[in-house]
Amino acid sequence: MERNRITSLFGIKYPIIQGGMIWCSGWQLASAVSNAGGLGLIGAGSMYPDVLEKHIKECKAATDKPFGVNIPLLYPQTEELLEIIFRHQVKIVFTSAGNPAKYTALLKEHNITVAHVVANTKFALKAAAAGVDAIVAEGFEAGGHNGAEETTTMVLIPQLRPLIQTPLIAAGGISSGSAMYAAMALGADAVQIGSLFAASTESSAHWQFKQAVIEASEGDTRLLLKKLVPVRLLKNKFFDEVVQAENRGASRDELSIILGKGKAKAGMFEGDVEYGELEIGQVSSMIDRELSANEIVDKLILEFRQSADRMRYSDYLD
Amino acid sequence: MERNRITSLFGIKYPIIQGGMIWCSGWQLASAVSNAGGLGLIGAGSMYPDVLEKHIKECKAATDKPFGVNIPLLYPQTEELLEIIFRHQVKIVFTSAGNPAKYTALLKEHNITVAHVVANTKFALKAAAAGVDAIVAEGFEAGGHNGAEETTTMVLIPQLRPLIQTPLIAAGGISSGSAMYAAMALGADAVQIGSLFAASTESSAHWQFKQAVIEASEGDTRLLLKKLVPVRLLKNKFFDEVVQAENRGASRDELSIILGKGKAKAGMFEGDVEYGELEIGQVSSMIDRELSANEIVDKLILEFRQSADRMRYSDYLD
Repeated sequence: MERNRITSLFGIKYPIIQGGMIWCSGWQLASAVSNAGGLGLIGAGSMYPDVLEKHIKECKAATDKPFGVNIPLLYPQTEELLEIIFRHQVKIVFTSAGNPAKYTALLKEHNITVAHVVANTKFALKAAAAGVDAIVAEGFEAGGHNGAEETTTMVLIPQLRPLIQTPLIAAGGISSGSAMYAAMALGADAVQIGSLFAASTESSAHWQFKQAVIEASEGDTRLLLKKLVPVRLLKNKFFDEVVQAENRGASRDELSIILGKGKAKAGMFEGDVEYGELEIGQVSSMIDRELSANEIVDKLILEFRQSADRMRYSDYLD
Repeated sequence: MERNRITSLFGIKYPIIQGGMIWCSGWQLASAVSNAGGLGLIGAGSMYPDVLEKHIKECKAATDKPFGVNIPLLYPQTEELLEIIFRHQVKIVFTSAGNPAKYTALLKEHNITVAHVVANTKFALKAAAAGVDAIVAEGFEAGGHNGAEETTTMVLIPQLRPLIQTPLIAAGGISSGSAMYAAMALGADAVQIGSLFAASTESSAHWQFKQAVIEASEGDTRLLLKKLVPVRLLKNKFFDEVVQAENRGASRDELSIILGKGKAKAGMFEGDVEYGELEIGQVSSMIDRELSANEIVDKLILEFRQSADRMRYSDYLD
C-alpha cells in the first residue's frame, strides 16, 4: 500500500476514488465504497448545509474507513458547507469547479487532505501551486461538467504527468480494471470513477435514471451546453431540445432558459428521465446491470490484476 | 513476434502502424516507417492514380520491408486507385471512410491483407463481417476525419474488444510509448499513429504545417464541421471562421461554402497555415520538435519498455 502515493495519502486499500456526484453520492454510496476499500465521497454539490451535515453524520456511523466530501466551489453556500466540514472534522475534501487558490490554505489549516478536480493543464498547475495534495484530471469522456478544451483522458494524463509532482488521479472513461490499469500506465497514481457508481445499488439516483444508464448505447452521450458550461448528458427529450437549439445557433441566454432550474434534480433524483438533465459519462454504454459498490470495486481489482498478468506474460515486442 | 497478431499479420517487427494521411504520407514517410520496423502506409486519399503509382514504385525501391496503401473509399477514383494497387501487387491495404463490404472480397481475391478504419462499434462489426484481417478503431482525439459518436480511445477499445475476434489497432491519442502500452492494456493488438508522423522529417507536409503542429498547445484542436463530416482541425483563421459559423448555427450548405475546395492541400501541403485546413490530433500539444520516423519508432519502443518495466515492478495494489 505504501508504494502507491494515493492509497498512502488517503489511507485506503485500493487506488479507486468514487467521484462526488450530485444526486447520486450520498452517505450510502460513499460509505459503501469506503467499506469496499476505495475512497467514498459525499457529493455536496446538490446539498444544503443541513443535508450535508446529516450525510456526514450517517457516513461516519456507516463506516470506520476514510471518506471525503466533494465541494464544487462555485455554489453560493460554499462557506457554510465548509463550516459543516470543519465542525465535523471531515479529513478529506475534493474541490472542483472553481479556483483552488481560494480555499486550499484554509482547508489545510484544518488538517484536511485536499484534492482538486481539473480538466486541463493550466488549472492543474494552479492547483499544484495552491498546494493541493492530489489532482484529479478529468477527460472529455467523463459525465457531467467538463473542460472547454475537450482533452481526452488518453491525452490529458500523459500531458500532465511530467509537469506536476503532485499525485495524479485519472477520471473519465474508466469502465473496467483494464481501463484503470491503462490510466495508471499513462501516469496516473489512481482513478476516480463516476458513472459506474452512479448506476450502483447504493447510488441515491432514481431507479429510472439508473435504468436509462443501463440501457444507454454507444454515442448516447454528448458534451453539450458549451456556451454555458460544458456538460456531458445522456440522450432524452431535454438533450434533443438542447441539440436542436445549438444547431440553430442558440445564444447563451436562450440556452440558459432551456436549461432552466432544477433539471438535474428532476432527471437524476426524481426520475424524470424524459425532460430532466441526465449527467453521465461515455462509459454508460458499457454498463449493463446494477451492481453494488462492493461488487464494482471487487470487479475492478480482479480485472486490474488480469490486465497486469496479461501485460506481464505476453511480450508484445519480442 | 509471433505472439503479436498484428506483427505476425503484416510481417513487421513492432506493432506500430503509421496512419495513411493525406498530404503527409507519401513514399518517403511510408518507407522510412517500414525501414524502422513499423508498417508504413502511403496515404492515397490525396493522390491521383498516376501519383499513387509513382509513390508505390518509389516505396518499393526505398524499402524491402512490408508497406501498405490507405484508400478512403469515398473518393470518386477508388476503382482506378485499386487497379494500380493490383497491378503493382501491393500486399497490404487499409480502407477507410466507406463501406468495408464493398471492396474487401475483391482485395482478398488479390491476396491482399485488408484492414479497415472505424470510429464506432457498428462499423467495426460490419468490417468484421466483411472479413477484414484487422480493424483500426479511431478515437475522438484523433486528427482529421472522425466519428459522429465522439467516442474516445479509452472507451472505444475496451468496448470493441469483447465484441470482435479480429485483431484490433487503436488509433487516436497515441503520443508516446506509455500511451501505446495503455492502448494495448485496453485490448488493442497494436497502435496506429498519425500526428507524430505527420510532423516527422519524412512527412511530405509543408514545413510551416509541421511548425504549426510543434507550436500547438492544449485545446488548440477541435472537432468541427459536424454537420458535414466531423474533422479535427488545428486553430487558425480558417478554424475561427468555421467556429464562428457553427456558433451562429450555420447550415450544412453554408459550411460547405466555407470549406470550399482544396483547403487541406493549401494548409498542409502548400503551407497556407492561416487560411488552410490543418488536420491534426489532440497529441499535437505534446509534439515539441521534428523527429525522423526512425527516431519516433525508437522512442516509442523505448518508452513502451519503460512503461512495461514500471508497471511490472511497482505493485499498484499490494
